[in-house]
Amino acid sequence: MTSSSDRSAQMPSADLIARFAAIVGAKHAIRDPSEQVPYLREWRDLYVGRTPLVLKPANTEEVSKILALANTEGIGVVAQGGNTGLVGGQIPHESGGEIVLSLTRMKRIRTLDPAGNSMTVEAGATLAEVQQAAREAGRLFPLSLASEGSATIGGNLATNAGGVAVLSYGTARSLVSGLEVVLADGSVWDGLRALKKDNTGYDLRDLFVGSEGTLGVITAATLKLFPEPRELATAFCAVPSLEALLPLFQLAEREAGHALTAFEFMSGELLGFVTRHIPGTRAPFASPSPWYVLMEISGSAEGRASSLLERILSDAAAAGLASDAVLAASLQQGQELWRLREAASEAQKGEGGSIKHDVSVPVSRVVAFIKQAAPVVERICPGARPVPFGHFGDGNVHYNISQPPGMAKADFLALWETMARAVHEVVLSLGGSISAEHGIGRLKADELRRVKSPVEIELMRRIKAALDPKGILNPGKLLD
Amino acid sequence: MTSSSDRSAQMPSADLIARFAAIVGAKHAIRDPSEQVPYLREWRDLYVGRTPLVLKPANTEEVSKILALANTEGIGVVAQGGNTGLVGGQIPHESGGEIVLSLTRMKRIRTLDPAGNSMTVEAGATLAEVQQAAREAGRLFPLSLASEGSATIGGNLATNAGGVAVLSYGTARSLVSGLEVVLADGSVWDGLRALKKDNTGYDLRDLFVGSEGTLGVITAATLKLFPEPRELATAFCAVPSLEALLPLFQLAEREAGHALTAFEFMSGELLGFVTRHIPGTRAPFASPSPWYVLMEISGSAEGRASSLLERILSDAAAAGLASDAVLAASLQQGQELWRLREAASEAQKGEGGSIKHDVSVPVSRVVAFIKQAAPVVERICPGARPVPFGHFGDGNVHYNISQPPGMAKADFLALWETMARAVHEVVLSLGGSISAEHGIGRLKADELRRVKSPVEIELMRRIKAALDPKGILNPGKLLD
Repeated sequence: MTSSSDRSAQMPSADLIARFAAIVGAKHAIRDPSEQVPYLREWRDLYVGRTPLVLKPANTEEVSKILALANTEGIGVVAQGGNTGLVGGQIPHESGGEIVLSLTRMKRIRTLDPAGNSMTVEAGATLAEVQQAAREAGRLFPLSLASEGSATIGGNLATNAGGVAVLSYGTARSLVSGLEVVLADGSVWDGLRALKKDNTGYDLRDLFVGSEGTLGVITAATLKLFPEPRELATAFCAVPSLEALLPLFQLAEREAGHALTAFEFMSGELLGFVTRHIPGTRAPFASPSPWYVLMEISGSAEGRASSLLERILSDAAAAGLASDAVLAASLQQGQELWRLREAASEAQKGEGGSIKHDVSVPVSRVVAFIKQAAPVVERICPGARPVPFGHFGDGNVHYNISQPPGMAKADFLALWETMARAVHEVVLSLGGSISAEHGIGRLKADELRRVKSPVEIELMRRIKAALDPKGILNPGKLLD
Repeated sequence: MTSSSDRSAQMPSADLIARFAAIVGAKHAIRDPSEQVPYLREWRDLYVGRTPLVLKPANTEEVSKILALANTEGIGVVAQGGNTGLVGGQIPHESGGEIVLSLTRMKRIRTLDPAGNSMTVEAGATLAEVQQAAREAGRLFPLSLASEGSATIGGNLATNAGGVAVLSYGTARSLVSGLEVVLADGSVWDGLRALKKDNTGYDLRDLFVGSEGTLGVITAATLKLFPEPRELATAFCAVPSLEALLPLFQLAEREAGHALTAFEFMSGELLGFVTRHIPGTRAPFASPSPWYVLMEISGSAEGRASSLLERILSDAAAAGLASDAVLAASLQQGQELWRLREAASEAQKGEGGSIKHDVSVPVSRVVAFIKQAAPVVERICPGARPVPFGHFGDGNVHYNISQPPGMAKADFLALWETMARAVHEVVLSLGGSISAEHGIGRLKADELRRVKSPVEIELMRRIKAALDPKGILNPGKLLD
């Protein structure tokens, strides 16, 4: 899949490669193609890139020197964290002229201020390491997603990662108060601030967050921490109809407010895939239901969250919004319920090919989207099985479609672009977004140009040209 | 006070003035200097500007035509909402070559989606009108500040306003999901989205929020709404020492989490000013205390917020963090307690001249800041009385200083710049910001250049040049 335009990048000379390597030392400059593999192949094998050199700098100063040299020489630089991105943004082009800048050695916790609810970490720390450091200080860093063991905080910020705690805590953007960024010419912007309020000029921080390495390289971040909830109450509900999802969400939100930390949904068919294909899982209810919701409430005192959740479930049952529900009686049971939701993506592999969409619409239109998309899918591929799931409370639907049973996988996947365009049309007609949390990268660069207004594309191009006039930062990604 | 550089703007010809006026119609093009006064004088009389023309467009199309013409002709345009800004950003320069663009006629509520917790309003609606529209739909728009009866939502967003509900809901930036912006050349960016997640390119929205009219003119916004809390519990506490403030905040935050919607503080001396000078106020306790805190907890069910607040107050008393406390028994009593805090600024007028600072530091350093700033003030003006107050939970201190009794007011105010620089040095040494919520405008444009790194200033200049190449948007504000 190489939908976005490739670039005939200038090939660095042997001498130039040696000068780059000297910045980090030979040990941290990977030239051997076999050693480069983990940096060039993304996990779904949608993209496999080439590079003369993977550089692993030890600190911000080395990143600065690398970019200064690349800028002078006009060499493209692809910043990379844990290589867990889903849209190809972290993989260099096949032409092989771009250098990969892996931030994975830079993983120091620079400061941790529990009283100030703040920590400053280097970009290469994994999300799991960041969560752990916060936990050891009695604090919560709420960003959480499936790949957190490998994904780095720098990558999370460069892509404005979402995940399962957005409903109450927001995306990665909401969880950072300051950044350190190396700019295209190698100069370093020290924007590491631990402030809740700062109205001194343009919001540079949020410009770099989500810019997918095209405006600068994030080398460190000051993150916001939160008090650890004392109690998590988790429930899995059987929901009798698609139409019941929104009123159930509104009921939970009205009762719990900010304490509602998750409201995830999945189709009944998808839960069937999970229990069929994922070892150790089982259906939580005797009879199947068309929809399921996982709800989580965080409490600041023992017992309060569970009693609140019980009341919500009882109100929901009375209003006909939930036909059955199980409330986790232990932390382990809670994890088992989460496992049902988290295995949703993996479980689809057991059903053959999947065409995937990561879209969002206003929360009030999620149901309309699901209703309107179904006949569109059926028209393009009769028998294909939409299995929507995701973060209902964020309006974020992973609108995945499993192939019809018996169809050749390749034939189904060949429909990806046609299907994506058609599904995106439904999304756009409802005021939605074609990428809720995964970003644009290469996968959606063409589609971005198609769906955005010329005014918006022009604004982005101007900003790109202003901050990276030679176009060395992640060339051809996001904007091509 | 004209600390930032004035601009010798080109004076529009009579013909050009007529062409501008024709866009909005003669009735809405104000040329008479006496009718222009409300648009040219800000409420503290720090700046009094001049203009050939105040234009009051009816809609986005007229704004677009005005900017297109201004851009072609190279005429500066100063966008203005309710003219309540505190740093002079909304007032044209004295040279009289800039046009004032008042958005106050554009105040339509375009859409309101209670189920989606979202509304789209035009820039000229006042904050109070926006709050009211949300309330009538059973929703809360939480932004709240003293000038909300006049301040417009467009101005709130252009300056990223803060106020008294930031602790739980964030600043204006956090409360907007989409914008409509007219760009320097008159083109219109339609970024009105009601999405919680949207990772499709650079974060243009947050670039315009807080840019003080220098990058584009906000004409409409899609705002985030919230369920209305069913109960507000308010308490006023006497705090025995400066050192008790942080642990008291931490206790409240730990117990209440997101439900803690305000944690405001003020010095004992300042409460004395309030009860002395503001009619109808009285001290809540028989004996004075060095510090006071106003705490508010929002509850989603009747009785829960008050019982939580009672428990916090009782824990605080047991820990020696509060020597006395009054919990409002009625909505009216709650408002009386809020009045003590809200009158803090007004009350200082009764004590002569005030030198004011709107600064922030990490929450864990507020106490250190207050301790370190006091001797600095005493050195510059012996006998001057620092009366800090503000949003403790946001790390935002309104570090105001009342003149020594008996000193000539003008002599004291002449020390403003010296004092501000010295106080800002303390702020910067603690990793703080010289403008927490009021912005830069003209008042702090020189100081901004002094305190920011050359890299950061250069980044901002590049963005300004990319989006407003002719420099017609609010010239000389923020960046001069």
